[in-house]
Amino acid sequence: MSYQRRMEELTKPQCLELMSTVQIGRLVFVHHALPAIRPVNHLVEHETIVIRATVGSAITEEVMIGHRGLVVAYEADAIDTARQLGWSVIVIGTAELVTDRLAAERYRSLIEPWVAGPADEVITISAEMVHGYRMVPGRLSDQADPGTSVTGKRLS
Amino acid sequence: MSYQRRMEELTKPQCLELMSTVQIGRLVFVHHALPAIRPVNHLVEHETIVIRATVGSAITEEVMIGHRGLVVAYEADAIDTARQLGWSVIVIGTAELVTDRLAAERYRSLIEPWVAGPADEVITISAEMVHGYRMVPGRLSDQADPGTSVTGKRLS
Repeated sequence: MSYQRRMEELTKPQCLELMSTVQIGRLVFVHHALPAIRPVNHLVEHETIVIRATVGSAITEEVMIGHRGLVVAYEADAIDTARQLGWSVIVIGTAELVTDRLAAERYRSLIEPWVAGPADEVITISAEMVHGYRMVPGRLSDQADPGTSVTGKRLS
Repeated sequence: MSYQRRMEELTKPQCLELMSTVQIGRLVFVHHALPAIRPVNHLVEHETIVIRATVGSAITEEVMIGHRGLVVAYEADAIDTARQLGWSVIVIGTAELVTDRLAAERYRSLIEPWVAGPADEVITISAEMVHGYRMVPGRLSDQADPGTSVTGKRLS
């Protein structure tokens, strides 16, 4: 079945609010000169995305090489494939290891890693560029209809 | 609620089979020297991922600049956040515009774009490197239990 959908831009506050309604996102970075992507669970705190990563993992390695200068993308979405509605938010920002022990402990208490493994690092991503859209019913020429717009809550 | 999960590597055929059970994936590429990611719907045909892209979009622009040499990543997953089970598959390969008119028409008939828009391009991604895993119950030291393993069908 096919519908006609229109993409509606979201504001930065809408984007970060929607991202905070889901647990999972996808971290995108360059690893050994190739594009890399990893699904992870996250915490959104103000304009910062916080994730945990295993010591020795590709992202930890790249963040340590980058030393406060690794640009990454982080994407989260909630897409209803049956109705072809949903949203996607993309953050581009600088990834950094959290080196302050107390801050790292606090984040570890707030983000539970799903996969059992060795001791891990905490990485923050500053939301420097934020873009997002939602798919709403209608063709390109249609007016937006707020009554049928899609929110993260309704999709999750 | 938190569980303990173990990541189990998937074979290349398992990865491509799982990817074909879902409609949506995320295309990852480098655009203007920054990491970029876009959710799209796809078709998996043998070892090729096929997507549609709008003329003038970031990916179309990069593929045309790259001229048969743009390396991209493509990720699909099905993750059950309540049970913390699921799978993720990542393909790395070369993205190319489909320039053969008949081949492009055939793909257009098989992949319906969700968003209304101008005439579009068809892009293939050759699955050169394929990695995937599923999260299964158990700690790192546990043996795999095939009876509780997760498949795309059970999650979708």
